[in-house]
Amino acid sequence: MTMQRKKVSVIGSGFTGATTAFLLAQKELCDIVLVDIPQMENPTKGKALDMLEAGPVLGFDANIIGTSNYADTKDSDIVIITAGIARKPGMSRDDLVQTNQKVMKIVTGEIVKYSPETIIIVLTNPVDAMSYTVYKESGFPKERVIGQSGVLDTARFRTFISQELNLSVKDITGFVLGGHGDDMVPLVRYSYAGGIPLETLISPERLEEIVDRTRKGGAEIVNLLGNGSAYYAPAASLVEMAEAILKDQKRVLPSIAYLEGEYGLDGIYIGVPTVLGASGIEKIIELDLTDVEKTALSKSADSVKAVMKILV
Amino acid sequence: MTMQRKKVSVIGSGFTGATTAFLLAQKELCDIVLVDIPQMENPTKGKALDMLEAGPVLGFDANIIGTSNYADTKDSDIVIITAGIARKPGMSRDDLVQTNQKVMKIVTGEIVKYSPETIIIVLTNPVDAMSYTVYKESGFPKERVIGQSGVLDTARFRTFISQELNLSVKDITGFVLGGHGDDMVPLVRYSYAGGIPLETLISPERLEEIVDRTRKGGAEIVNLLGNGSAYYAPAASLVEMAEAILKDQKRVLPSIAYLEGEYGLDGIYIGVPTVLGASGIEKIIELDLTDVEKTALSKSADSVKAVMKILV
Amino acid sequence: MTMQRKKVSVIGSGFTGATTAFLLAQKELCDIVLVDIPQMENPTKGKALDMLEAGPVLGFDANIIGTSNYADTKDSDIVIITAGIARKPGMSRDDLVQTNQKVMKIVTGEIVKYSPETIIIVLTNPVDAMSYTVYKESGFPKERVIGQSGVLDTARFRTFISQELNLSVKDITGFVLGGHGDDMVPLVRYSYAGGIPLETLISPERLEEIVDRTRKGGAEIVNLLGNGSAYYAPAASLVEMAEAILKDQKRVLPSIAYLEGEYGLDGIYIGVPTVLGASGIEKIIELDLTDVEKTALSKSADSVKAVMKILV
Amino acid sequence: MTMQRKKVSVIGSGFTGATTAFLLAQKELCDIVLVDIPQMENPTKGKALDMLEAGPVLGFDANIIGTSNYADTKDSDIVIITAGIARKPGMSRDDLVQTNQKVMKIVTGEIVKYSPETIIIVLTNPVDAMSYTVYKESGFPKERVIGQSGVLDTARFRTFISQELNLSVKDITGFVLGGHGDDMVPLVRYSYAGGIPLETLISPERLEEIVDRTRKGGAEIVNLLGNGSAYYAPAASLVEMAEAILKDQKRVLPSIAYLEGEYGLDGIYIGVPTVLGASGIEKIIELDLTDVEKTALSKSADSVKAVMKILV
Repeated sequence: MTMQRKKVSVIGSGFTGATTAFLLAQKELCDIVLVDIPQMENPTKGKALDMLEAGPVLGFDANIIGTSNYADTKDSDIVIITAGIARKPGMSRDDLVQTNQKVMKIVTGEIVKYSPETIIIVLTNPVDAMSYTVYKESGFPKERVIGQSGVLDTARFRTFISQELNLSVKDITGFVLGGHGDDMVPLVRYSYAGGIPLETLISPERLEEIVDRTRKGGAEIVNLLGNGSAYYAPAASLVEMAEAILKDQKRVLPSIAYLEGEYGLDGIYIGVPTVLGASGIEKIIELDLTDVEKTALSKSADSVKAVMKILV
Repeated sequence: MTMQRKKVSVIGSGFTGATTAFLLAQKELCDIVLVDIPQMENPTKGKALDMLEAGPVLGFDANIIGTSNYADTKDSDIVIITAGIARKPGMSRDDLVQTNQKVMKIVTGEIVKYSPETIIIVLTNPVDAMSYTVYKESGFPKERVIGQSGVLDTARFRTFISQELNLSVKDITGFVLGGHGDDMVPLVRYSYAGGIPLETLISPERLEEIVDRTRKGGAEIVNLLGNGSAYYAPAASLVEMAEAILKDQKRVLPSIAYLEGEYGLDGIYIGVPTVLGASGIEKIIELDLTDVEKTALSKSADSVKAVMKILV
Repeated sequence: MTMQRKKVSVIGSGFTGATTAFLLAQKELCDIVLVDIPQMENPTKGKALDMLEAGPVLGFDANIIGTSNYADTKDSDIVIITAGIARKPGMSRDDLVQTNQKVMKIVTGEIVKYSPETIIIVLTNPVDAMSYTVYKESGFPKERVIGQSGVLDTARFRTFISQELNLSVKDITGFVLGGHGDDMVPLVRYSYAGGIPLETLISPERLEEIVDRTRKGGAEIVNLLGNGSAYYAPAASLVEMAEAILKDQKRVLPSIAYLEGEYGLDGIYIGVPTVLGASGIEKIIELDLTDVEKTALSKSADSVKAVMKILV
Repeated sequence: MTMQRKKVSVIGSGFTGATTAFLLAQKELCDIVLVDIPQMENPTKGKALDMLEAGPVLGFDANIIGTSNYADTKDSDIVIITAGIARKPGMSRDDLVQTNQKVMKIVTGEIVKYSPETIIIVLTNPVDAMSYTVYKESGFPKERVIGQSGVLDTARFRTFISQELNLSVKDITGFVLGGHGDDMVPLVRYSYAGGIPLETLISPERLEEIVDRTRKGGAEIVNLLGNGSAYYAPAASLVEMAEAILKDQKRVLPSIAYLEGEYGLDGIYIGVPTVLGASGIEKIIELDLTDVEKTALSKSADSVKAVMKILV
């Protein structure tokens, strides 16, 4: 019976975090707390204020603040983690994983302290292992720690298919399992244009090229930008997941979820179709896989496990 | 009877230009061409692609391309200029003005070559002088060269008033005349909360503080960011002006317009209330000013003229 | 921390009630319960189902049910009352008032029984007296019983001004006090186009004609329809008020509010500027009135009191 | 390079026509002309004015007029025909068909006279035969005369599936071929929840029940309303088709289209998957059908032909 506004905190005020905050505000879904480390407090405040000043023009009422003080995140309905570093030249994968693991631990501790009932969505890479870290560190039930990757991967796939067929993106759907990027297991037979299986509209060779471009979709942007990685589509993906939860929409969206036996996997976070609603991941949908798909998923799971071994 | 999509080109793929493109796409107002110099072609393509990949998730059908080739802007309905440099330490104001003037001349030449019937909206600072430069260089009728500043200034003012009174930004209106920033002439008596004059709701001293903060609103963000200037609210402001034109809305919005006798001024671009519709600036609205306001506007006009003298 | 969807019940499934339900669903603000008397249960279910079936096309997730059982309204965040009869030929005003008073009493009893913490918005005419009836019958604090009239009256006024000046409705604001329709006290000096007082844009004679048309705006529609009264604009007005409350927007909107001394009036419901937020009417804004305005408001209050005397 | 607003005329100001006009305005897609016969001119004007008065509140700039004069429809981009009578007790099917055929002929003559380049969308039942009548009478190329039925049928199907599975309507897709209602040929194997074939989520028996309910979806509403037929979902369906055309979206939507050999059918209007864009029906998508589906489509075509024989 309370009409309190919802509250979402976004950890990390880089391009993805800031764009996520802006989209949440534009949709008037909640008030927003944008958080970064003390050294970044002023830029974070600057971005938050700049967004807020767009409100009268875009017509949204949403409070947006920038802060380095986690007390400001108190009682968040959702916390989205975009913090962490990107792999730099000369950095080993182990270094990357362990550095971001440390960030996850610190961030999670603060989140749990101020919002023990919140739902956490993780974007930081490697997202499977980082979701696992947050899950363990938070002590939250598994349905309240969710990783993002499949919404973004399918968004890229849908974009490429839309261009290939010159059809509206509104009518293209895609489907992936497994890890993010290279480990993505596309289920092309579950991907459609206006409900028509893509396999009947596009040749296998061309479809494989598009799948391959999707797998490398993140790298394509990185290479073009030269200095940084994608943030518009990742932010949009995070916001779609958050909206499904905030509005209890029961959306069928791919999530990085904690498996306990589903798909023959146990004790790891990996991408599977889920139902997102007010409780977070309300259901993991299990599909019958072909042998080829099973093998691909198993290989993807091996990659995730290999990263998990690096965790300290 | 043609159902062709509208086309808007955004010159300059920095934060403001990119955010402008993204907002245009989100509103599904048009297809978008994001243009930058050849050295920036790849990052520009990267941003455009990243935005495009947000389309399936946010639900918009809009083509967005990045390019350094002005031929891609052919037959734009509107061109928005965000290109130019910001003042750097050690740079004289004259250097800034003359550098951006050169940019305007080059950009305008290309725009006119490919879209001789388009409407140009200028954001580059100093916006009054840059709008004048584009107007002269384009040879366009004055109603098709428009500068942005008042929408942004009033957005900031409205934000601060909303916070002061704890009222929805939807119900706060503001009104400014004159140049951007320091030269802004706020007409507080034409500013309201729910239609109630602000002067009856806020003390003169506090109102003056808020006006002063608004005047320095750009600098406030610059100081917080430490490295760059505002882009969310400026982009939103550009998009509101573009939407008014694309949809022929007859919006009453403050624009940097070319005056020929209005408000006792002649031959300069300066901020006045205008009606924006399909033809660009369809009307300049003249108000009776108090003596104090007249003096302030005259002073603002002097500042604009001082900058115009630097133009080569 | 709960992400439960909001719930709004709409009492009366006639054109206004149904359109209100549809707009609430379109905005994805809440789940909706459309209620009517047992004899109307099937048509009410039919309308609710028809709306629901528009959801996949318009893209909204909102449950909408039709019912005659108030138990279905349990724990509504807001209840909107549109039930009641319209005045028919040969019916005295006293008959109308007393009939609708009876309806209000029955409806309010049921609302309070199932949603003791809800906020009630009343549309039924004569709205001042009916709001009073609901207030008394409910035993609710005054901020949780609100009548609608000023949002609609100003919407009509804004429409006519927009047509008169050929300017966007987005930039026209209007302001009224007092009762609905004939008793409306327009504050033209607080009405603007783009912030510019209408008095400086339109002649007094023409403005008076437009005010007069606004006063008779309901009758104009009734006369045109021949068989029924307006419902699109009334429904939109109800939804704007409900949205302000559901999203805690602190909107400055005119409401029929219970006065206890404000504007020199006591113990009656009448139209005044208010702030609407999560608690309902969070504030009544008092304005200094001119003598002419005071007289008009006093006359309007007398009309309201005259109707209240008919209440049994 | 023109920024003229689009114009859509809606023939028939009954519930469906009026709701269609209102949705078009809400989406700010175009200006709207609502047309009915002279005897209905005043109610039509009344509805148009009432909608217009909702504009300031809902925030749309769209002109809406009611008229009985087809000259007002001049140069419409799209004309939507909702006019015609519903079958009444005691009326033979032949009477219904021939009466509506007469209406189509009169209406089409007027449309063509004032908007020879327009695109026509037909809703009037029996929609296959009425689309054919309009096609013949207009002399338009086939891509500019389109019937609506599949968007509505799938909307109903998606609603029922959403309820069955408790999943967001946003993630349910459906697919039908053939005529409207009883003649509908559902392609369940092309219908999904989150991309997962419904056949793997719902038992064949239950799915058949839902298909059957969809087939009778129009009658279900008619029976509940007791006095009239569905209009919310039909109007939403018309608007989705119109939006696809006005924005050149290349949507994949089912349309009643004129076949010349596709699906082995020739010279009839029947429901098939199409691509809708600026030119109207830009493509008919042909699918491989199973033998069962071929038989069902053939039977549906026979029904359409039987109705066409009644045409005079």
